[in-house]
Amino acid sequence: MMTPPEGDARALAAQLAGAARAAAGRLATATTADKDRALTILADQLEGETARILAANARDLEAAEADGVTGALLDRLRLTAARVAGMADGVRQVVLLPDPVGAMEGMVRRPNGLMVGRMRIPLGVICIIYESRPNVTVDAGALCIKSGNAPILKGGREAFHTNGVLVEMMREALVAAGLPADAVQAVATSDRQVMTELIRRDQEVDLVIPRGGEGLIRYVTENATVPVIQHYKGVCHVYVDQGADLAMAADIAFNAKVQRPGVCNAMETLLIHRDIAPRLIPELFARYKAAGVVVRGDARTRSLWPDAAPATEDDWSTEYLDLIVAVRLVDDLGAAMEHIRKYGSGHTDAIVTNDYQASQRFIAEVGSSCVLVNASTRFNDGFELGLGAEIGISTSRLHAYGPMGLEELTARKFVVLGSGQVRT
Amino acid sequence: MMTPPEGDARALAAQLAGAARAAAGRLATATTADKDRALTILADQLEGETARILAANARDLEAAEADGVTGALLDRLRLTAARVAGMADGVRQVVLLPDPVGAMEGMVRRPNGLMVGRMRIPLGVICIIYESRPNVTVDAGALCIKSGNAPILKGGREAFHTNGVLVEMMREALVAAGLPADAVQAVATSDRQVMTELIRRDQEVDLVIPRGGEGLIRYVTENATVPVIQHYKGVCHVYVDQGADLAMAADIAFNAKVQRPGVCNAMETLLIHRDIAPRLIPELFARYKAAGVVVRGDARTRSLWPDAAPATEDDWSTEYLDLIVAVRLVDDLGAAMEHIRKYGSGHTDAIVTNDYQASQRFIAEVGSSCVLVNASTRFNDGFELGLGAEIGISTSRLHAYGPMGLEELTARKFVVLGSGQVRT
Repeated sequence: MMTPPEGDARALAAQLAGAARAAAGRLATATTADKDRALTILADQLEGETARILAANARDLEAAEADGVTGALLDRLRLTAARVAGMADGVRQVVLLPDPVGAMEGMVRRPNGLMVGRMRIPLGVICIIYESRPNVTVDAGALCIKSGNAPILKGGREAFHTNGVLVEMMREALVAAGLPADAVQAVATSDRQVMTELIRRDQEVDLVIPRGGEGLIRYVTENATVPVIQHYKGVCHVYVDQGADLAMAADIAFNAKVQRPGVCNAMETLLIHRDIAPRLIPELFARYKAAGVVVRGDARTRSLWPDAAPATEDDWSTEYLDLIVAVRLVDDLGAAMEHIRKYGSGHTDAIVTNDYQASQRFIAEVGSSCVLVNASTRFNDGFELGLGAEIGISTSRLHAYGPMGLEELTARKFVVLGSGQVRT
Repeated sequence: MMTPPEGDARALAAQLAGAARAAAGRLATATTADKDRALTILADQLEGETARILAANARDLEAAEADGVTGALLDRLRLTAARVAGMADGVRQVVLLPDPVGAMEGMVRRPNGLMVGRMRIPLGVICIIYESRPNVTVDAGALCIKSGNAPILKGGREAFHTNGVLVEMMREALVAAGLPADAVQAVATSDRQVMTELIRRDQEVDLVIPRGGEGLIRYVTENATVPVIQHYKGVCHVYVDQGADLAMAADIAFNAKVQRPGVCNAMETLLIHRDIAPRLIPELFARYKAAGVVVRGDARTRSLWPDAAPATEDDWSTEYLDLIVAVRLVDDLGAAMEHIRKYGSGHTDAIVTNDYQASQRFIAEVGSSCVLVNASTRFNDGFELGLGAEIGISTSRLHAYGPMGLEELTARKFVVLGSGQVRT
């Protein structure tokens, strides 16, 4: 992985984008049967050649360990036979999902007899930039193939060899199904300049999806001329309203924090109506304590649970991704929504309430990508919401807001069927 | 209209964006009745105070004439009582359109009992940058108000006084209906630096729509961190297939070019199957000639119509917006579609054919924002396609492709109604 000089970066980006554009043209009109065949071959190959994948992964792990990488980071990079089988299963699930391309929606007859509808078409070339986990390579590749898009995948340098083999297998599977190999490509260098060139080739690249840290997303947003869909952090809230069911509120607040704290739809801040707090806090916080959750509370919370550490202003906008929860008591629903508006990240916010009017106001006024009543924030997920698989969760409103499934990887063109109509 | 120093430009942009953000929050939850009331008051005021508008317009016209502006440019800037009445009518039509905000789509019950649907919400703050015609100010403002978005309008400097009065009236109408004045704002300076600052304030501005010349669109695309929806040029095609109905083909090819040549959905290039050309060209080109249309043809066209000027490579990608047509003979449908893929702008393309398979291939394989069979390209228009009014025609696939109506000015958030569900 050498860093090529700048001119080479430009040439490499031009070559990748040009090849992707050409392949996207062919993939856009491929039949569902052919695309599914490529994915099925891929799934079989992932399982049949697991050893080849694990050997490449071993090289990445060795290099990472030599670089001093340990713990969760090393674990995210590590593949096992079971994890590879999980990837193959994921690909087979994508085969089972309906192909959105070609679907015609809302065809109506206009007064002049024209039939007008909208047909779903692929977006085209999608540049996906992500970090360590190699399963993203296969997940994103499979969703793009199924929806007729040609991805250019730029994974983390620490997964270089693993991603290389996975992309090789995708290309082999495409060719075996009679589709162009370049419908999936990898950026085979860790040189950031290639990425910078790619995200400025708006004549060939239709979308860039940066998945990773805020620094990466900010860099892409600042430098891209290609449209960007951001997958920013989730500072997710649960608000427990005055007359909420106590047991339900405790279960949801516990599940949203503890069931999988390291993901973006986990709750980070718990807002509690002051009137219900004395009854909710003792039992819930005891459960938190038993589960190893650290509570950081405002003054009113700490007066009820002195064990809590004091929350600072920074806590309200922090995505812990850990067993930490910030807790604030609020005077009413309006104060809760004001807190969410001020500190939230537009990702996922839930209310627990038995009050009809409170539920309606929360739904109407909270503008996040997913708004829940009496359910855990953990449900903001493509599979749980019924999209099948997802390529990530968009926190920007344009094009897709919330989980992006196959349909969100398409555009719609107008189709007009006439019988000689002209305008007068 | 002085050019403020750079720090002032930043401060002005911050002030505009901050005020728009706050107003958008209030407008997002305004009732349809209140929004419609503001628009009705505006329509009445446009008609009742036409003299005030025409006086401001006279100042702009005077300044433009002093600057040597003449002809079509001056005409586009000029308002008359009839044109102001037309603006008021346009606003009243927007009142009659359904409000997309709050509509809940596709609510289904998941296996665990969760009800999941998507609710339409406004995008938020939209920066619209456009050139001379002052009616865009009112059209865009009315569509944004109806869909709950707060626009920041940046019109051409030549319409400065006219736009100033029109925005003033919109703000008065908003206040009269109990809505915030800052839900519509104008950039009251011709300083480009203010625009440049605005399109980088992605924490407050949700979308920028540049409507104007390629230079403007390119500048915005290069410099914005806010998402951009491009309204690029229309290099639109009509392809007359082998077995087309001759009279229908001639009518469509004539209408697409001549009915209103100065707009983006007018045909610029006519592609003719070589076998039908000898029968189509004599009558059609005689009509063109009578209508003052200049034909620029390839060699085969000129062999059939020696009157035609030779077309150069540049002609195939030129948007004439004038009574000029480029004509090429092609060997088959595949060659026609290859020409469209290579030279088209993804705007509007039509086929005239009686061949079922040709119609299906054209629909499936041409990826433009509007694909027509046996109808004039001039139908790619929000009103003609049934969207009601439109804010422009997007040529980028993300979010909206083709005419953008009220619905395209909204996003969708997920709404989840539970009864205590948690993830296991």
